[in-house]
Amino acid sequence: METKLTEISSSKLFGGYNKRYRHFSPSLGCYMTFSVYFPPSPPPTSHKFPVLYWLSGLTCTDENFMSKSGAQRVASSEGVALIAPDTSPRGLNVEGEADNWDFGVGAGFYLNATQEKWKNWRMYDYVVKELPQVLSENCPQLDPTRASIFGHSMGGHGALTIYLKNPDKYKSASAFSPVSNPINCPWGQKAFTNYLGGNKTDWEEYDACCLIEKYPDISATILIDQGEADKFLHEQLMPNKFEEACRKVNAPLLLRYQPGYDHSYYFIATFIDDHIRHHAQALNL
Amino acid sequence: METKLTEISSSKLFGGYNKRYRHFSPSLGCYMTFSVYFPPSPPPTSHKFPVLYWLSGLTCTDENFMSKSGAQRVASSEGVALIAPDTSPRGLNVEGEADNWDFGVGAGFYLNATQEKWKNWRMYDYVVKELPQVLSENCPQLDPTRASIFGHSMGGHGALTIYLKNPDKYKSASAFSPVSNPINCPWGQKAFTNYLGGNKTDWEEYDACCLIEKYPDISATILIDQGEADKFLHEQLMPNKFEEACRKVNAPLLLRYQPGYDHSYYFIATFIDDHIRHHAQALNL
Repeated sequence: METKLTEISSSKLFGGYNKRYRHFSPSLGCYMTFSVYFPPSPPPTSHKFPVLYWLSGLTCTDENFMSKSGAQRVASSEGVALIAPDTSPRGLNVEGEADNWDFGVGAGFYLNATQEKWKNWRMYDYVVKELPQVLSENCPQLDPTRASIFGHSMGGHGALTIYLKNPDKYKSASAFSPVSNPINCPWGQKAFTNYLGGNKTDWEEYDACCLIEKYPDISATILIDQGEADKFLHEQLMPNKFEEACRKVNAPLLLRYQPGYDHSYYFIATFIDDHIRHHAQALNL
Repeated sequence: METKLTEISSSKLFGGYNKRYRHFSPSLGCYMTFSVYFPPSPPPTSHKFPVLYWLSGLTCTDENFMSKSGAQRVASSEGVALIAPDTSPRGLNVEGEADNWDFGVGAGFYLNATQEKWKNWRMYDYVVKELPQVLSENCPQLDPTRASIFGHSMGGHGALTIYLKNPDKYKSASAFSPVSNPINCPWGQKAFTNYLGGNKTDWEEYDACCLIEKYPDISATILIDQGEADKFLHEQLMPNKFEEACRKVNAPLLLRYQPGYDHSYYFIATFIDDHIRHHAQALNL
């Protein structure tokens, strides 16, 4: 059965349109909202737009990236559509789901939970399987078979792990200040214990450092930008661990430390153009 | 006595810094917060940065423009500082001050109220007199004697009226979807009745259409962008009235209607570069 999308807003920018859609998600068992930026219409002879998924960080919705990153400017000129999903299921009223800003609502960690209490937390399936299907069925201007993925912080973790596990589905990945080694940081340990249980071997399926050793044959250099003034750098993010892991298996990584930049969308806005062009190249635009 | 500024946040972007400051405002009788974007430091031989004031619309604080417009990218390359004040006094607990989104808190209309109840609503003095003084005293990298002004909606009204009344203080003005003829629209009539009383002659001091007839000798072409899909266009904004008034006195105006664009920051983000370059030119950058 086709997913019915309800358009809840539409604004023109940089010649294209930013639209928000609401739909019932069978993967998550609740209504979800996501945003799409459609570049200006391609000439009649050209193909559909490839899609670039953005995965947001803790506490975000589908809106933060679209309203704060300025990504649409270069997405418009490069002709790539941007897709921003929400960061967790919402409105399920699971006991305690909103008690923590770093766990539960707004903190899906882009995995499929295995623990009964959090069984609806299946953002991995939602992003990798359901959303591309929804776009295929509802947005004829998009070509979800040509896709890349990027994200910030928890969403950087999501982009890296999803890319490494699905080399057939994404042409490239990049990240801003990703949670690079979640099995060894407080955010990741808290989330994985609750969502995946106490068996740490299960956690490795969602850790970029473990995955790159398993799947080193990636199709494009991974680009990571990391602010040096980011207060989460050493305790939570640890991109140096991912760099080590990539070096060990000769996987191509460009990790750029940016002096003075913090963890905010101001940092993202400063370097977003480089990331979009990185993906546009991988998508053969 | 010098105003003491407290820095409440600082983020690097596009090589410069976005900072928020809090201070006690004698003009308004309350604490106020404003934002500044400092471009990357000029070379030692060069001068201080000129300042470009942004006045926001109804319901906004000092943050909306800084986080959503993307203005810092070109402000950085052009070497102009951006100053974003709040839109009204806050925290005074005047009865009913927050009952309406289009009046009271978040809706100062950049005037000096004359009615006793709203005596603290003196955003005109705050923007024109107090803020430049505060910047002079506290920010040695800025040169507030070289200034221009722009804004959105209610803030577009503010920018136009302040510019026309102070040809010695601002080199240029521009606006996105300004409230162009407030004495003849519901937002303006509601605000002016409450802040200025029932004598409509007093209102004309804060109406761009009346002011341009009084002060037609402006130093630079006024640039206005207006979205054609803006739901407030015909009832509240009426830039056509300002166009007529300018034509009558031969004042230079460039009014651009932008097909498909609405009233949001997505519209602003799309055309912000043109506005900053317009001001940079008037500021001799």
